[in-house]
Amino acid sequence: MRAAFYTGNRTFDLRDVPVAEPAPGEVRVRVAYNGICGTDMHAYHGAMDKRIGFNRVIGHEMSGTVSALGEGVSGLASGQPVVVRPLKPCGACPACAAGHSHICHNLKFLGLDTDGALQEEWCVPAYAVHRLPDGVRLDHAALCEPVAVACHDVRMGRVKAGEDVLVIGAGPIGVLIAMVARSQGAKVTISEINPHRLAAVEAMGFPTLDPTKVDVAAAITEATGGKGADVVFEVSGTQAGTNLMTEAAATRGRIVMVAIHTRKPEVDLFRFFWRELELIGVRVYEPEDFDRAIELIASGGIDCERMITDVRDLGEVASAFAALDAGGPSMKSLIRVAG
Amino acid sequence: MRAAFYTGNRTFDLRDVPVAEPAPGEVRVRVAYNGICGTDMHAYHGAMDKRIGFNRVIGHEMSGTVSALGEGVSGLASGQPVVVRPLKPCGACPACAAGHSHICHNLKFLGLDTDGALQEEWCVPAYAVHRLPDGVRLDHAALCEPVAVACHDVRMGRVKAGEDVLVIGAGPIGVLIAMVARSQGAKVTISEINPHRLAAVEAMGFPTLDPTKVDVAAAITEATGGKGADVVFEVSGTQAGTNLMTEAAATRGRIVMVAIHTRKPEVDLFRFFWRELELIGVRVYEPEDFDRAIELIASGGIDCERMITDVRDLGEVASAFAALDAGGPSMKSLIRVAG
Repeated sequence: MRAAFYTGNRTFDLRDVPVAEPAPGEVRVRVAYNGICGTDMHAYHGAMDKRIGFNRVIGHEMSGTVSALGEGVSGLASGQPVVVRPLKPCGACPACAAGHSHICHNLKFLGLDTDGALQEEWCVPAYAVHRLPDGVRLDHAALCEPVAVACHDVRMGRVKAGEDVLVIGAGPIGVLIAMVARSQGAKVTISEINPHRLAAVEAMGFPTLDPTKVDVAAAITEATGGKGADVVFEVSGTQAGTNLMTEAAATRGRIVMVAIHTRKPEVDLFRFFWRELELIGVRVYEPEDFDRAIELIASGGIDCERMITDVRDLGEVASAFAALDAGGPSMKSLIRVAG
Repeated sequence: MRAAFYTGNRTFDLRDVPVAEPAPGEVRVRVAYNGICGTDMHAYHGAMDKRIGFNRVIGHEMSGTVSALGEGVSGLASGQPVVVRPLKPCGACPACAAGHSHICHNLKFLGLDTDGALQEEWCVPAYAVHRLPDGVRLDHAALCEPVAVACHDVRMGRVKAGEDVLVIGAGPIGVLIAMVARSQGAKVTISEINPHRLAAVEAMGFPTLDPTKVDVAAAITEATGGKGADVVFEVSGTQAGTNLMTEAAATRGRIVMVAIHTRKPEVDLFRFFWRELELIGVRVYEPEDFDRAIELIASGGIDCERMITDVRDLGEVASAFAALDAGGPSMKSLIRVAG
């Protein structure tokens, strides 16, 4: 079978390797599609070399069909369409003990800490497998993982129908958060500076605000009768986004921290006190978020056609990463892995 | 009657003024005791001159007895011991409309935006009056307002019995938070650098950690089997406290932002993402917090004797403020107003 190995510094090596048999408790999945994630781009840039090495099959946003079952696995049959929740918790740390195994202190991420989905046949723990209902397109289903992130973020932000929501940053996760929040009846506005992304989310029907042109906090405050946004999603990872999140939030507003801030920005803690704001850190997803993501994709609640901007064969994996790296109008790039 | 007017730059003027009659909807209270708050100290230092002017009776942490009722007020009788929740919301702004009138966008604070309790007879809106049960000492009852702050903070932090709580900063509010959390069965540790305060809270039975001597986050992590504090109260208003709050919190821990950060400190937002931390801004109190505070003081759940470190007559108001300003072992200073 074919497998794409990351071999350091923006390179991949496509190799023919033997198909592995699933170990006890594992399921082997024939991978249909794999989406390229921001984390994969970090890996491609060499930023995760220490963690992943130079001989690693990456990839974790995928869909496929069951091709073999390891010993002791039941409830799945060959040919069953599935997606994989790529988390392997330790089961013993304080986070696992408290029921938060999705953010286990010793979490292994499948496709980074283990080989991932950019190979035709992938063996994964059976507990990580979610069945897809009949009729879901496998290209659409490859969005389940990032949609599960968005479902987690919206659930943790306790978004309710009719609430005013501001999403700061319209990368793929920001856009999916906007879609999930809209599917629950929230009134969503997106703040973004990139003209390609502004055009993309406007085509999806979202009102936008460009902070290079308007005072976003003032615009949101005015549009909500002086109230502000009930829920703000910070997905930009910038100081400007961090400033905006506290300025735009309503009294008792919830701010959901989705972005990965690698530096410590200055935060207006006075505003947290003054308006009794709440900041909610969010990371990956829990099983129920995956179930909800599958449901949303199956029911058409996610505009998958506008999200998926290109599909390339596994043999073109290097050029797919290079194209994303060059910027431009791409939202989500898929790799067709097997078939 | 006697009234102490703040007249600018660390000065008070004690005057004999006529006793006012309560307006319709008001209650007149004969003030027994008034505690000196950190906000009063700010006023004393001139930091609030623009807001309060140079002819203002300050004071809002008080106890007293009803002495007269304005037109339309029922359910209270002369001589009834009471405390006053010193908030006057507008009733019309988005915060009031959403049910958060305690942090109204146009909130008037009695004793800052109006004349306060450093006068023998004080007229206040009837809705601000809370009755005290029989037998509560009026000196103890003067702590109801800061205890209500602590009750609000602990309630907003959703502290549960058996949880590990870290309080950063042992000023009066930090200490009261520790007492309220302990009264609910939490295991409370206090981080503080001031030796007077360390000695005071140790005498109250709290374990302490001094960040000038130990790594507080490491100590809390070790003492909790690698977990960290379930709830952290940031009451220091410092960059060091802001660093500690994220380092010491457990996965999914709640951090309650009590302090007034006048500068924007750097905040480890990565840690919020990584451990799914929650930051909860808190300000003043709601009516139920006042009721809870009264209950706690009445039942002996607050160590009032150790909190109240000195009592002076209204005539000594200037020296009481000067003594607090000089620092030292004071925790809460009371002024005996009428009597």
